[in-house]
Amino acid sequence: MAGGQLREIERLGRSLRGIPIHTGARYRLSYSFDATSERGCAGGVAFPGSLDDLARLLREAGRRGIPVFMRGAGSGFSGGAIPLDGGLVVSTEKMHRVLRFDARAGEVEVESGIVNRELQDYLEREGCFYPPDPASLNFSTIGGNIAENAGGPRAFKYGVTRRYVRSLTWLTAEGEIVLGAFPEGLTAGLVGAEGTLGAVYSARLRVLPLPEDFRTSLLEVRAGEEAFSFALSLLTAGLNPSVLEYIDAKTMRCVGEYCCFGGLGRDSDFLFIEIDGSRVEAAAQEALLGQMARAFGVVLRAARSAAERELLWKLRRSVSPSLARRGLTKVNEDVSLPLGALEEASRFVHALAGELDLDCYLFAHAGDGNMHVNIMTDRRRAEEMARVETFVERLFERVIGLGGTLSGEHGIGLTKSHYLSMVFTAAELELARGIKKAMDPRLILNPGKYFMPEAAACGGSVQRCSSIG
Amino acid sequence: MAGGQLREIERLGRSLRGIPIHTGARYRLSYSFDATSERGCAGGVAFPGSLDDLARLLREAGRRGIPVFMRGAGSGFSGGAIPLDGGLVVSTEKMHRVLRFDARAGEVEVESGIVNRELQDYLEREGCFYPPDPASLNFSTIGGNIAENAGGPRAFKYGVTRRYVRSLTWLTAEGEIVLGAFPEGLTAGLVGAEGTLGAVYSARLRVLPLPEDFRTSLLEVRAGEEAFSFALSLLTAGLNPSVLEYIDAKTMRCVGEYCCFGGLGRDSDFLFIEIDGSRVEAAAQEALLGQMARAFGVVLRAARSAAERELLWKLRRSVSPSLARRGLTKVNEDVSLPLGALEEASRFVHALAGELDLDCYLFAHAGDGNMHVNIMTDRRRAEEMARVETFVERLFERVIGLGGTLSGEHGIGLTKSHYLSMVFTAAELELARGIKKAMDPRLILNPGKYFMPEAAACGGSVQRCSSIG
Repeated sequence: MAGGQLREIERLGRSLRGIPIHTGARYRLSYSFDATSERGCAGGVAFPGSLDDLARLLREAGRRGIPVFMRGAGSGFSGGAIPLDGGLVVSTEKMHRVLRFDARAGEVEVESGIVNRELQDYLEREGCFYPPDPASLNFSTIGGNIAENAGGPRAFKYGVTRRYVRSLTWLTAEGEIVLGAFPEGLTAGLVGAEGTLGAVYSARLRVLPLPEDFRTSLLEVRAGEEAFSFALSLLTAGLNPSVLEYIDAKTMRCVGEYCCFGGLGRDSDFLFIEIDGSRVEAAAQEALLGQMARAFGVVLRAARSAAERELLWKLRRSVSPSLARRGLTKVNEDVSLPLGALEEASRFVHALAGELDLDCYLFAHAGDGNMHVNIMTDRRRAEEMARVETFVERLFERVIGLGGTLSGEHGIGLTKSHYLSMVFTAAELELARGIKKAMDPRLILNPGKYFMPEAAACGGSVQRCSSIG
Repeated sequence: MAGGQLREIERLGRSLRGIPIHTGARYRLSYSFDATSERGCAGGVAFPGSLDDLARLLREAGRRGIPVFMRGAGSGFSGGAIPLDGGLVVSTEKMHRVLRFDARAGEVEVESGIVNRELQDYLEREGCFYPPDPASLNFSTIGGNIAENAGGPRAFKYGVTRRYVRSLTWLTAEGEIVLGAFPEGLTAGLVGAEGTLGAVYSARLRVLPLPEDFRTSLLEVRAGEEAFSFALSLLTAGLNPSVLEYIDAKTMRCVGEYCCFGGLGRDSDFLFIEIDGSRVEAAAQEALLGQMARAFGVVLRAARSAAERELLWKLRRSVSPSLARRGLTKVNEDVSLPLGALEEASRFVHALAGELDLDCYLFAHAGDGNMHVNIMTDRRRAEEMARVETFVERLFERVIGLGGTLSGEHGIGLTKSHYLSMVFTAAELELARGIKKAMDPRLILNPGKYFMPEAAACGGSVQRCSSIG
């Protein structure tokens, strides 16, 4: 990192009264990570508390040519929030208020730093919910969810974040405030742009009334008997579940051990299904599910109480923490595929992991084709990491061959940006970069990410620093 | 129009074998209109029949600097398809095939020129439907629906076009083909861009299984008794209709006369409601509707047979044709408002129309806040047209004051582009124009529309021509 940049950030801190800006090593270190195993290099960390703070900060940083890395909880899986080359991390932590709630209009307006769970708790008291439910919902923020266009198990029935963003109040690279009315097509384009086109201050979100009833169940499909095909048959038969998750046998064994819950996943893959709706509708849908399970010889365990429902959700939510015990480093790819290609992709993944002798765990949002491929490894073992890299490249090739894409919900960020040319032509990438340059001519917003991994910022090349302080 | 341009288009026609390009006065005249009362001036009309045709056409037109106006059915209400200054109209009429249908993936891929109704008929045979249903669905094309991000009565429950576009195959201003995989944020930005950012060849659309059951009804709310408030109460009580339309008393009288159906709208405003879903769900929802109607003293007529349902839909669909008998010129504004502001906006509209002595008809997609304000007039009466202009300006001012926007589903096009500065700041408009210039540096795609009414094309200023041939 250029020492000049650090001094520039210190000067910025002195010039902006009332906005805490820290340049101590402790802050800079803590805010240089996210949930990947990548590490960046923050030059300082700012904590704006209001729209006015954020606007002043961006204007002043822009004037001084300091790159800005917006950050929610830093729980992303693609390095989107990692600061490069000593830029300024702008944390939304202090901006987490509910600004307005309108039950009749089915709408809530929140600051971007609110944690998804905080919002859900608030809404539940009002008899509503906000559908996007990424697995990280207990800590990830709405701003981060917007930056990555987050999904979650419920996305199959309810759709991903973009569908619930009615408008945004955001700031341009110059610190100009854009109030919610900006054309919805461009607002839609900001969702999922990973903070490269603008900085989101607040969002007007569509919310739905809480369903009257839930029916939750776990289905066992003998391994090799095509759980994905069974899932598709359910949909074709008219089942409309809010959650339809696939978990492979190996992952489920791991969950069972973690939760001290025996008998899971010896020879079976699993489907985790939740139905929601009015009482009559939920009952009718559950009857259909039971009928299909009997017809296909699939074992169905239905939750018969709130406690049993809670237990099933605990199993589902334990997938990620249980895997953490299997290796120091998790390589976590969330490819997305046409539904009809999931079965083939799953066979390919299992065979390839065997061939390369890697410890692989597979689960998927089976309703919308988003497959999570996890390799548990240790980044300190160079030879194994080389095999992991081969695995990821061959996985991406096959996924694209099957008509899929590189990311269902984790984004491109830092970790996938050098794979973009596998998906897009040079002309397409040029076009995307043209839009980036039109909106952020000085390449100050989250430089080095997404479409512009090579973006020159700070008057030089973007580099990941190897030490701080 | 510059004679040079016309000759350039004639040369273009000779150089592109196999693509019909007509420069005769008959074609040029017929393709210079849309559903507004505006008239433009086509220099020629091209009918590409394939992706390859379209790509060759755009490349060649781009090379010669000929502006391109993509056109579906020309049924738009904001002048989006109207050619200016002798540019080339590119009709999608000959590209209307269903390219692929995948029932299990819930997906259909179609060329952009397919008429919405043709698609619906195709899907119905497969047990599916495509939710966006603009009132123009019998003639408007999917490409036009995408350009305007069309909605329709069902948009309340099912959402508008953008929600159903999984990916697009489109062409840049240079004629580069962009296959469906383009980042979804940018694809989402193309939907609703009115053909100013790219030319859509085909779309992969999400489709849904046909609901098992429908319950359709017409409700009479005594005028002045707040039909909009009653509609909101229905939603708050948990009603989830697929269609929730408001039609004011005066419009309904007009419909009754047109359909020779007596007794409509003497002193009542109307709500037209359709519920869909499984049999049990529809029955439960209908019971709730009946209960609410009784509690609020609202008269409910429910369709008791397919024929009665057809009759109610005929009344709803007759709104626009019935108005056509009330005046030669229809000024049709489709403002959008927060749900809580509909009642106030409706009172404002009725009072303002009275004050300015204008013949005004109001209906609305009450569930999603999209209000259609129609003034029936005659553009040849200059003094009355001046009052209409005052009306529109004061309407827009009030709508914006109430937190609304200028267009719910008709778009900005030609007719509303000079009002954009009422909604957006100069910096915002500059940003939007920056994106336009990044994607279409020579301003060749639909110049003179949307964000760039003043766009200089054809080496000079864009003008509406007053004569052809």
